[in-house]
Amino acid sequence: MSAPLFDRVAIIGIGLIGSSLARAIKAEGLARTVTCADANPEHAERAKALGIVDAAGTDPAEAAAGADLVMLCVPLGAYGDVAAAIGPALKPGVIVSDVGSVKQAVIRDMAPHLPEGVHLVPGHPVAGTEKSGPEAGFAGLFPGRWCILTPPPGTDEAVTRKVADLWRACGMTIERMDPAHHDRVLAITSHLPHLIAYTIVGTATDLEDHLRQEVIKYSASGFRDFTRIAGSDPTMWRDVFLNNREAVLDCLQRFNEDLTALQRSIRRGEGDALFDLFTRTREIRQGVLEARQA
Amino acid sequence: MSAPLFDRVAIIGIGLIGSSLARAIKAEGLARTVTCADANPEHAERAKALGIVDAAGTDPAEAAAGADLVMLCVPLGAYGDVAAAIGPALKPGVIVSDVGSVKQAVIRDMAPHLPEGVHLVPGHPVAGTEKSGPEAGFAGLFPGRWCILTPPPGTDEAVTRKVADLWRACGMTIERMDPAHHDRVLAITSHLPHLIAYTIVGTATDLEDHLRQEVIKYSASGFRDFTRIAGSDPTMWRDVFLNNREAVLDCLQRFNEDLTALQRSIRRGEGDALFDLFTRTREIRQGVLEARQA
Repeated sequence: MSAPLFDRVAIIGIGLIGSSLARAIKAEGLARTVTCADANPEHAERAKALGIVDAAGTDPAEAAAGADLVMLCVPLGAYGDVAAAIGPALKPGVIVSDVGSVKQAVIRDMAPHLPEGVHLVPGHPVAGTEKSGPEAGFAGLFPGRWCILTPPPGTDEAVTRKVADLWRACGMTIERMDPAHHDRVLAITSHLPHLIAYTIVGTATDLEDHLRQEVIKYSASGFRDFTRIAGSDPTMWRDVFLNNREAVLDCLQRFNEDLTALQRSIRRGEGDALFDLFTRTREIRQGVLEARQA
Repeated sequence: MSAPLFDRVAIIGIGLIGSSLARAIKAEGLARTVTCADANPEHAERAKALGIVDAAGTDPAEAAAGADLVMLCVPLGAYGDVAAAIGPALKPGVIVSDVGSVKQAVIRDMAPHLPEGVHLVPGHPVAGTEKSGPEAGFAGLFPGRWCILTPPPGTDEAVTRKVADLWRACGMTIERMDPAHHDRVLAITSHLPHLIAYTIVGTATDLEDHLRQEVIKYSASGFRDFTRIAGSDPTMWRDVFLNNREAVLDCLQRFNEDLTALQRSIRRGEGDALFDLFTRTREIRQGVLEARQA
């Protein structure tokens, strides 16, 4: 068996993604030691009890001390604080990376707190479920999915390759992207869908009690797919919207225009316009199936 | 073995729901003979070849002749024409039912064409997938789901019970509802979600070519769930929106108000408002899980 990629990996935040990564690292033997920290002491203890990490606590600096790779798996809003906390504990030459759904914010929030000689390589494994916490993770979350890396200009190529190797060993396919472009693509493909799902499920929560119960009862007819998405972690998603504001609002603007047009078609009884749209969207579904992302 | 519920069942329209029903009827021995008609001769032939019906053709009158139960499984826009075609062929005392997603339109479109002595019992098995055609059906579509019947006032109780018995034998649980109430509940739980999914996927189809390819590539992050819904049959859904216009537009109005409020919260950076909404929607998800509709 070849040597592990890393001697010591620290995972900060042992939720769905963090615990899935810990499991994949253990399963593939990608590090000699895995430590973790989580602000929630129960999550830290649970991770230890599950045997997916070698040490766990609530102090990110303690977890990060001596690590070759520190992977942030916390909500975006916590990046600044975590960076400030771990900064002094980081060993020279360490790689710091993350799994966040917004990439421009990473450098902005973390770089000011990291000492010289630290390699910051933001990343985004595009995979997930609506579940949260260390129990929700599984190593099978990653295979067949994409991982997008957004190393800033001037990043050591060998360092980026090492982060890529980690995710590739977890089963992912690697892409590199400009962080602004990442944030625009993900605004459409992920942030807008979540925003819409939260809204539609929110609309249902405001219904009279009896009607709301019926909506749940008959949710198999479409609504339940939105509840799944809208069941995602509130803190994580609050931070996504606050940190990718411009791109999300821009998408939302386009969506609103299209919704207004569709509303008008329904009001006017324009069957052909509806049929044309529904035929075009079916082709996109076909594209998703062909890309094996369904 | 007890006698089948019906001597002869005619299924008009052998798509996803029609062919699933045919399979369930065969599997459970619910009719001595099952005939079908489909406007698409290939679908009719395919149903025959699959062995899920005893006879198949393109003429609904021919399929309906001599049947004890005629089940319409065609898009809502075809109800009037089908009723006019089968009317003269129906045997006295026949039960005519349907599986459509809108219920007020059924009586309006069909009743004028049906002769005296025909029992019209509209129904809606709340189950489906985004797939279409006779190959897409499966008897397992129904178990654990709800079937809503909306018999008009004065309907013979024994007749309604017989339709209920059919769906119950397919594994469904039966509810009765006023058709206007049905259309309102389904507007929220099914029609609005489809409308929104069609819109968001439509918004993506209008993107520049390169960006659209990326949206498909990274669709696992949320978008793909919408493409599934937006991959549903265009004719069926055109007809749903045209036939439940008022209730759909009313829901859409509420949705739009909520979306505007959320948009403002994002623009203003109101994290607490976002967190509160996302926490409430998570509770609805919990409700769906507890109702075993997930």
